[in-house]
Amino acid sequence: MPDTNLAVLLRRRPVGAPTDADFEIVEGPVPEPADGQVLVRAKYLSLDPYMRGRMSDAKSYAAPVPLGSVMGGQTVGEVVASRHPRFAPGQTVLGGSGWQRFSVVDAAVLTPVSTDDAPLSWNLGVLGMPGLTAWVGLADIGTPRTGETVVVSAASGAVGQVGGQLAKTAGCRVVGIAGGAEKCAFVTQELGFDACIDHRGDLRAQLNATCPDGIDVYWENVGGAVQAAVWPRLRDFGRMVMCGMIAQYNEAPGADTVGAPAGPNLGAVVRKRLRVQGFIVSDTGWPRYPAFRAEMLGHMRAGRMKVREDIVVGLANAPRAFMGLLEGRNFGKLVVQIDA
Amino acid sequence: MPDTNLAVLLRRRPVGAPTDADFEIVEGPVPEPADGQVLVRAKYLSLDPYMRGRMSDAKSYAAPVPLGSVMGGQTVGEVVASRHPRFAPGQTVLGGSGWQRFSVVDAAVLTPVSTDDAPLSWNLGVLGMPGLTAWVGLADIGTPRTGETVVVSAASGAVGQVGGQLAKTAGCRVVGIAGGAEKCAFVTQELGFDACIDHRGDLRAQLNATCPDGIDVYWENVGGAVQAAVWPRLRDFGRMVMCGMIAQYNEAPGADTVGAPAGPNLGAVVRKRLRVQGFIVSDTGWPRYPAFRAEMLGHMRAGRMKVREDIVVGLANAPRAFMGLLEGRNFGKLVVQIDA
Repeated sequence: MPDTNLAVLLRRRPVGAPTDADFEIVEGPVPEPADGQVLVRAKYLSLDPYMRGRMSDAKSYAAPVPLGSVMGGQTVGEVVASRHPRFAPGQTVLGGSGWQRFSVVDAAVLTPVSTDDAPLSWNLGVLGMPGLTAWVGLADIGTPRTGETVVVSAASGAVGQVGGQLAKTAGCRVVGIAGGAEKCAFVTQELGFDACIDHRGDLRAQLNATCPDGIDVYWENVGGAVQAAVWPRLRDFGRMVMCGMIAQYNEAPGADTVGAPAGPNLGAVVRKRLRVQGFIVSDTGWPRYPAFRAEMLGHMRAGRMKVREDIVVGLANAPRAFMGLLEGRNFGKLVVQIDA
Repeated sequence: MPDTNLAVLLRRRPVGAPTDADFEIVEGPVPEPADGQVLVRAKYLSLDPYMRGRMSDAKSYAAPVPLGSVMGGQTVGEVVASRHPRFAPGQTVLGGSGWQRFSVVDAAVLTPVSTDDAPLSWNLGVLGMPGLTAWVGLADIGTPRTGETVVVSAASGAVGQVGGQLAKTAGCRVVGIAGGAEKCAFVTQELGFDACIDHRGDLRAQLNATCPDGIDVYWENVGGAVQAAVWPRLRDFGRMVMCGMIAQYNEAPGADTVGAPAGPNLGAVVRKRLRVQGFIVSDTGWPRYPAFRAEMLGHMRAGRMKVREDIVVGLANAPRAFMGLLEGRNFGKLVVQIDA
């Protein structure tokens, strides 16, 4: 295992889809922890759609990554050296060390992670931020009830796979939307959704066929044409859990505001008493993490929660993997294993 | 007072803005109550924007008025004859007798009304469906908190005037939007809103000037250009109380669904964690009516709830008055006094 540092810097702000030239991969010496700090060697890095927003300086809910800095991101890794009494070498920790092999961090931003109940990388997916996102969004906004029809976009992805399976445990009919026959087969056969629609086909016809009585809850990860097809099929009192709209993340800054691509006419919100609500897991999610984790482990033990990860090996491959994520080329929760 | 019946029938479904030819005013004999029924003489008829939807056979939350039938609507009036033990001649009642002078109704659909705490017509406005609408929508969706900025469209109208004053009692900064200087002056000077914007002027500039820190709660009665101007000014965690979109009620059927005028890009719903939610007062409102009425009477006694009605005299003038309502020509809660 290499003992030099390796990091991915944001070199310039992507215009449209990110390219290799927007990133810079740099090697360097392993940093030294100061008093109160911990040196962590990351094992896995989570890649998530929200990171596209951090690469842009358009207004968002979090500050952009400064140019020339290490891209931010959540990691699980191992303590290599510690100058804080709460941590010791060999300990496994969750932290936000970003796209790099070694990092020196304040002890306050690290959380010890159990390694005996699940594979380490799951702490970045089904048992981490994406899983908690699914759980919080369903509990607070989706509120699925037995017998309702729930449609989940990006159904084989990090959030969608958890959200759909949770909706199944709530007694719902769950229809996924994914890209291609292979993902759709996985969503129905492995994840146990009742149906899955290929968004490359005729969305409207497939939605009519799989949701003949309309849609009670729509989990929005995508936006664009998928949203437009779902919108008129929402039932009275329908809920739209607005988690993301990845289809427009590569559009010019301002896609969210003035001059943005048009959205649906909101008359239906009145007429059908719809609830269209966005959320960010970090607003209210983490204090509920212990309850979430306990519930999820229970589902796993009972065979009700399957997991699919897309693990890319080698930190240097992170930029390309991230570009693929924005185009739906990943299959399952995208994670970078820092070293082979 | 005439003792023949008079009724306004829906003659044909309006295409675009309703015209005289869409209605028929018919005279006839006073009907006779059967056993269990009550004969009511209406004194006031409420005219409300939702009635435009009833004139159309486009899909909505309630069935359309059949062609050739009396237009539906809420009334207050007096029992003339009763063949039900719970009602006696002279009693004042609230009911849904529609656009007509006399009606025979089942006792079950009548509610006795107190006449000693407020003018009779107020039971159709500030103390009736529109007032309850404002109260329910603020309580369930708007949830205004002290110091927040609340923007109310159609601010001098039946729902807006109540909603804005209720938001003031909650300690909010309240900005109205109304049509013309006279209405704006009323909204600030009489209703006590902190500011009022004339929607015939430059909406964006006026919103920037009156809401420099953005908008926490937007009460939507209007849609169209007003909605488009408000949308990018909603703050993080903003709520949009979707009560109506009168600007498009005269548009072709389908304005709510496929082929509808575009709405805002929903990316901001995720990014700002907005809650955009519609409601219809009849879904959950009436069981809470006693609490609402008690609170409203308290506000009135304390001088915190002013009322402006626009009373049109003569049932035959109801169609024209309704046409004016859709164009914002009324000033205050529009009520028809059936007879002079």
